[in-house]
Amino acid sequence: MLYLVGLGLGDEKDISVKGLEIIRQCYKVYLEAYTSLLGVDKEKLEEFYGRSLIIANREMVEQDSDVLLQDAYKTDIALLVVGDSLSATTHIDLLLRARQKGILTQIVHNASIMNAVSAVGLQLYNFGQTVSLVFFTETWKPNSIYFRIKENRDLGLHTLILLDLRINEPSFESLARGKKNYESPRYMSISHAIGQMLELEFLCGRKVYDESTLAIGVARIGSSTEKIVAGSFKQLASVDFGSPLHSLILFGHRIHILEIEYIRAYALDTEVFDALVQQQFPSVSKI
Amino acid sequence: MLYLVGLGLGDEKDISVKGLEIIRQCYKVYLEAYTSLLGVDKEKLEEFYGRSLIIANREMVEQDSDVLLQDAYKTDIALLVVGDSLSATTHIDLLLRARQKGILTQIVHNASIMNAVSAVGLQLYNFGQTVSLVFFTETWKPNSIYFRIKENRDLGLHTLILLDLRINEPSFESLARGKKNYESPRYMSISHAIGQMLELEFLCGRKVYDESTLAIGVARIGSSTEKIVAGSFKQLASVDFGSPLHSLILFGHRIHILEIEYIRAYALDTEVFDALVQQQFPSVSKI
Repeated sequence: MLYLVGLGLGDEKDISVKGLEIIRQCYKVYLEAYTSLLGVDKEKLEEFYGRSLIIANREMVEQDSDVLLQDAYKTDIALLVVGDSLSATTHIDLLLRARQKGILTQIVHNASIMNAVSAVGLQLYNFGQTVSLVFFTETWKPNSIYFRIKENRDLGLHTLILLDLRINEPSFESLARGKKNYESPRYMSISHAIGQMLELEFLCGRKVYDESTLAIGVARIGSSTEKIVAGSFKQLASVDFGSPLHSLILFGHRIHILEIEYIRAYALDTEVFDALVQQQFPSVSKI
Repeated sequence: MLYLVGLGLGDEKDISVKGLEIIRQCYKVYLEAYTSLLGVDKEKLEEFYGRSLIIANREMVEQDSDVLLQDAYKTDIALLVVGDSLSATTHIDLLLRARQKGILTQIVHNASIMNAVSAVGLQLYNFGQTVSLVFFTETWKPNSIYFRIKENRDLGLHTLILLDLRINEPSFESLARGKKNYESPRYMSISHAIGQMLELEFLCGRKVYDESTLAIGVARIGSSTEKIVAGSFKQLASVDFGSPLHSLILFGHRIHILEIEYIRAYALDTEVFDALVQQQFPSVSKI
């Protein structure tokens, strides 16, 4: 049996009782830690779970999954995933391959950023599609995210923007030389994300947002050091959000007065916030 | 301190270790059970948590929340919520009132249907806005849901449709007579939902879907008796999904070939499924 167990978002105690029981009874326990990040390290998890964990890097899960599946064919193994167990494409793909080999699977769900984002006081019903922002290079600046945000904003829906993290990524130079060296881990900050977003606006020019656009920056959501700040792009770009992971949320014009009231408590500067709300959401702010 | 603790979706063991520790240390523990449902009853929860639970009905949380907040002002209390702790508007509102009274709050997240729906093999990134379908009456058939589904489908995005549950609802007749009697609990089945959806198509006539439209019905997602079936509206309407809660998922045309491959295992009839995929998603099915 292959168990996919979600660990939640904060620390070692966010695992469910069911998930913990499974970990303790499995023959081998793999920890996948490149699609998201927990606020505590492997040693802390091992101590609390009472099990040693085998790091499963991207290659193992995506390409060499035979090792995982071979184990699961013979005995009970668990793959631990930060957040929910199925938020990333790669895990659906793994389940598909397990199924093709006749391996039984069980999913243990947990919170993911996609529902925990409600902590900022925005209704999940008012969100459109979620998007991911990757690190740009000089030659690679994918703009599909810009048009997806435009779709959400045209409909008046909020957008959750997940920011890139690169862990266990082979460096481009090493791939070119046929020898694998790994990049050092990188996490996109809100300030960096806003820079890239404004670059996309400059390149695509459809007036989807600008530096006065109201947004929320969140860091380490669901953990005890969670940080939530509301303000304009320009304001947020100057805030230090600390350690990863960071995400960014854009408001849609269907925003409800209760949502604004809740978020106001997180405003970097309440006067600026009120003025921007009045300017960007006049129909709501007059209620 | 007011703790809002998400219980997850399946049974008593889906609570997080953190949530369980909080329950055991709180002075009073309230159980809110009208916005969603767990697969086990109050007694089972009490036995496992080792605490007696006070039922918090809709009135208490939405109107008479003073009792909850008064307790939280003096001591530690927990409000347990099925699914994630913040999926419903009413909980954001409660947090807002707590904050206005200077009461500290802490949120303990968990899985909700909004992320656990990924269990069907669809990518969360490909979902548009989530909608709720309420029980129609002879005189009240709100059609906003129809136009929201249209928005998602126009963009090629999947739609998660949450089906109504009515627990602790005062009956209309009793309200008219100024005396409160409560309706018996009702849960919308997939078959009932499809009937209402087709009625909306008939009333609004924008050709958003019809009885041959491919969809997925899911019941008790995240629990050990989870049921997932893919087929046309017409096919799904004849399937017995058993106990609540039920949800319905419509595909968007941006669907990926891997998503189709995964879902195919849940088809009521693989031949019919393949034919409908070819007809409704020709560009994907030819890949």
